[in-house]
Amino acid sequence: MANISEIRVAILGFGTVGSAVAHVLQAQRFPGIRLTHIYNRGVARKRLSDRAAGLSADLVWTENVDEVLQGDVDLIVETIGGLDPMEEWLQLALRSGKHVVTANKQLIAYRAAHLLQLAREHNRALVYNAAVAGGVPVIPATLHGLQGDRITRLSGILNGTCNFMLSHMEQGAEYADVLMQAQVAGYAEADPTADVDGFDARAKLCILARAAMQVGINPDDVPAQSIRTVAAVDFQYARELGCTVRQIARAELQGDTLHARVGPMLVPKSSPIAWSHGTENMVVTTGDFGGDVVFSGHGAGGNPTAVAIVSDLLAVAHGSSSVALPVRDCAVTGEFQAPHYLRFLVRDKPGIVSAISGALTAVGANIDSILQRPGYPKDALPFVVTTEPCLTSTVAAAVEQIAKMPTMLEPPLCLQMLTDDTRG
Amino acid sequence: MANISEIRVAILGFGTVGSAVAHVLQAQRFPGIRLTHIYNRGVARKRLSDRAAGLSADLVWTENVDEVLQGDVDLIVETIGGLDPMEEWLQLALRSGKHVVTANKQLIAYRAAHLLQLAREHNRALVYNAAVAGGVPVIPATLHGLQGDRITRLSGILNGTCNFMLSHMEQGAEYADVLMQAQVAGYAEADPTADVDGFDARAKLCILARAAMQVGINPDDVPAQSIRTVAAVDFQYARELGCTVRQIARAELQGDTLHARVGPMLVPKSSPIAWSHGTENMVVTTGDFGGDVVFSGHGAGGNPTAVAIVSDLLAVAHGSSSVALPVRDCAVTGEFQAPHYLRFLVRDKPGIVSAISGALTAVGANIDSILQRPGYPKDALPFVVTTEPCLTSTVAAAVEQIAKMPTMLEPPLCLQMLTDDTRG
Repeated sequence: MANISEIRVAILGFGTVGSAVAHVLQAQRFPGIRLTHIYNRGVARKRLSDRAAGLSADLVWTENVDEVLQGDVDLIVETIGGLDPMEEWLQLALRSGKHVVTANKQLIAYRAAHLLQLAREHNRALVYNAAVAGGVPVIPATLHGLQGDRITRLSGILNGTCNFMLSHMEQGAEYADVLMQAQVAGYAEADPTADVDGFDARAKLCILARAAMQVGINPDDVPAQSIRTVAAVDFQYARELGCTVRQIARAELQGDTLHARVGPMLVPKSSPIAWSHGTENMVVTTGDFGGDVVFSGHGAGGNPTAVAIVSDLLAVAHGSSSVALPVRDCAVTGEFQAPHYLRFLVRDKPGIVSAISGALTAVGANIDSILQRPGYPKDALPFVVTTEPCLTSTVAAAVEQIAKMPTMLEPPLCLQMLTDDTRG
Repeated sequence: MANISEIRVAILGFGTVGSAVAHVLQAQRFPGIRLTHIYNRGVARKRLSDRAAGLSADLVWTENVDEVLQGDVDLIVETIGGLDPMEEWLQLALRSGKHVVTANKQLIAYRAAHLLQLAREHNRALVYNAAVAGGVPVIPATLHGLQGDRITRLSGILNGTCNFMLSHMEQGAEYADVLMQAQVAGYAEADPTADVDGFDARAKLCILARAAMQVGINPDDVPAQSIRTVAAVDFQYARELGCTVRQIARAELQGDTLHARVGPMLVPKSSPIAWSHGTENMVVTTGDFGGDVVFSGHGAGGNPTAVAIVSDLLAVAHGSSSVALPVRDCAVTGEFQAPHYLRFLVRDKPGIVSAISGALTAVGANIDSILQRPGYPKDALPFVVTTEPCLTSTVAAAVEQIAKMPTMLEPPLCLQMLTDDTRG
């Protein structure tokens, strides 16, 4: 353990992750690492909570953030999240000569370039491997083990909440029920928007693309489709197609354009991406030289995220954290060439199939299969059409026309289908 | 890309891996990295080979190793393998102030401590992430992303040749046939000993244990069981048990003792370890805090291994390669508490089952199931007994007694069974 002088560590936020970091540091007793400060609002209450039990009596507990950001510490661990006021706080910390380790995916997804520049100017480390996939070390693996490759494709399950919900829907439950289950289990927030509408996974995809493909993109440019419109019947149809449904984040680099999208997609059961159960995360990287590499594990939760944070902290202490990437800005499109799954809910009348196939033919999309499971009422009949590979925008144009048909009881559900070839 | 001065690189060995490194470097044009020398015996022939096509005309091709080891280069990539003369050569390179990147698993497994010490004395880097699992960056991930955890268990498929052979035997082929297939496909050597008898996987397990658990062990202390005695019938019985058979390398740290073993084992089909097809590699790490993390991908072959080597080379160039581990020496035992699979080939006579169960009872091992598939001749009848969890040495003592029974046509096959709990 050469070259380690003592590093004084402060934790911002004493919630699930922050308290886990404190306990991992205490349990592991890494030489040269000393937890000195914990910041939280209403800190007196936190200090008396069960989570504080067993921590060293020497700790300074404070609700004065300046005591931490500009005080006698060397490294700040940020576990609070969000853009505001965290951006300002971490800027202040870097300017005050502190290293920063953060799990804040929104902040890094939107502001990485600026914060890294500031860190460089002050010769401090800013490390954020915990921001993606929690305890699955996909960013360090990419930075330190796949830089020699040219990674052109990423696909992954980056939101444990959606994976929990969709893998429960696979067992037959409806969306509203699994959302409630996820909320009761503490996996989903009262307002589940960030998870189910794909904003969380999208931020992580952008961070991952930056590390693996050296592209800087604005998360707002990546289309995110909600899982709210996926129903139990979609899993039945998916099964007939040898698939299941998962929230997938995927990106593909073609020249100077990144094709990127987040949303529920059909995934072949034979694909590694279908292996993840419950809240697990999974990432598949595809490189020109090394081919596919699969990473899987616990993507969230206090202890797994704490492992990522503490590993970052040790990397900073060892001086081995600095991989300076030549990141370039990159255009983003949501277009993919892929087969698509279309599920309609209709009042059944003669001629519907012909009208739908006509709308698809009109845009140049070919039908691959038509599925209609028995046992549904004629006045609210779900049935499915899958297309041969075609562009997202092509199928969207057809869906827009189809949605206007008077027999449609709700807007058609249109999901991209991953194939074994896309390894999603 | 701060702090990169030009690094002059020499490659030792222009075989599958060495030539792939040359081509990856040429294709990627990493700033500050320049391939200058290639060493090989009979280099004139190599230089005219197909593999050399398209490489820069500036390259110095040499069969004088001193021109490389002590010449005008900054970093040596070693792709030749073996202990002798490589240990001496790399020592000379380090003493001459060269960084070393190597894929040499035997050398690192046996001599890491000594070579790392030498590298430190000369303030040079010695990096060997390519020595384990080729293009699957499990060592960088462990060093940079899991150091915050306390990893207590490793299990993996670390030898692509055995995985190719056993996953083909799963389809019904016999050992001799799949060995020939693997030899024809170029996956197995004319002398397959290092692969099939577990010495290759054992070396990799030791390197992995060093990185993940910070233990220094002698590979010779790890029991290695051959896959030569596994037969097609074992896959049929395994299937009845919900399992398949794979060559597994596993290690478990309990206090100051490492329990470690390499050999064919029964693996539940539901386990991630059964996912690997063909020559793929897979590693599952288990940590006290982060739980299980799964890594999978191409464990061998020119390009995937080149990705690992070139990534190491970039890490050295960026100065981010140095994670100094506080490695401690560790006792090793092959003992595991596990259920076992025993397959007997007998001349069927009344009383055999009772004799076998008697021998197991005598040592305190309980039978969990007895399986006898129909359709085999009575004079060469394979049948199977599985035990409840018991120690390796306990079941071995019973097997030793059973082997002496006159009805046994060959020594019983005894395989450890991984359970979902051991995540193997």
